[in-house]
Amino acid sequence: MLDQTTQMNLLYDFYGTLLTEKQRSLLELYYVEDWSLGEIAEHQGVSRQAVYEAIKRAQSTMLDLEESLGLVKSHLKRQQLIETIKSRLDQMPEAAKAIGPLIRELEKLD
Amino acid sequence: MLDQTTQMNLLYDFYGTLLTEKQRSLLELYYVEDWSLGEIAEHQGVSRQAVYEAIKRAQSTMLDLEESLGLVKSHLKRQQLIETIKSRLDQMPEAAKAIGPLIRELEKLD
Repeated sequence: MLDQTTQMNLLYDFYGTLLTEKQRSLLELYYVEDWSLGEIAEHQGVSRQAVYEAIKRAQSTMLDLEESLGLVKSHLKRQQLIETIKSRLDQMPEAAKAIGPLIRELEKLD
Repeated sequence: MLDQTTQMNLLYDFYGTLLTEKQRSLLELYYVEDWSLGEIAEHQGVSRQAVYEAIKRAQSTMLDLEESLGLVKSHLKRQQLIETIKSRLDQMPEAAKAIGPLIRELEKLD
């Protein structure tokens, strides 16, 4: 189970481009810059409640997108499989040489 | 370069869940069932031009989503890497045994 901040960060990595510019700046302040609701409210000249509701709406949009597309779920499964492949390759130097770089390319695509 | 029908089918596989129910049935008739614009128009009791425009709008929504998320692009790259890995594993029976099933699981996630 992921904690809520990790989950939101992952959702944001995958779906951030589908949010509005305004939603993106809000989530960046809250999750990346770690501002409090009160600090964001003061900075934007709106109420703390308005900030809270805007964050909830953005989160809900991302959760709906995940429900439809499941990108975070697939990403986590792929990551797990790639880790297992890499640890098996550690014990097979010849295969690691032939396949390791391709696995790393696969990993970078995520 | 993919032909337009293949490209639209891939876009539909990845983004179909984000279209409206109406857009989905339209694209299914057009791309999967291979109905003509005229046949769809007659079936829906609207003009051929209306069907044409609705299809264009759905296509444009999917192209915008691809521009933001790039899921088809990543899928095609991943598919290519997985094919290369599989053909290298064909020459390494021991590695194929240890890693092949994990590669096939990766493939299925796409």
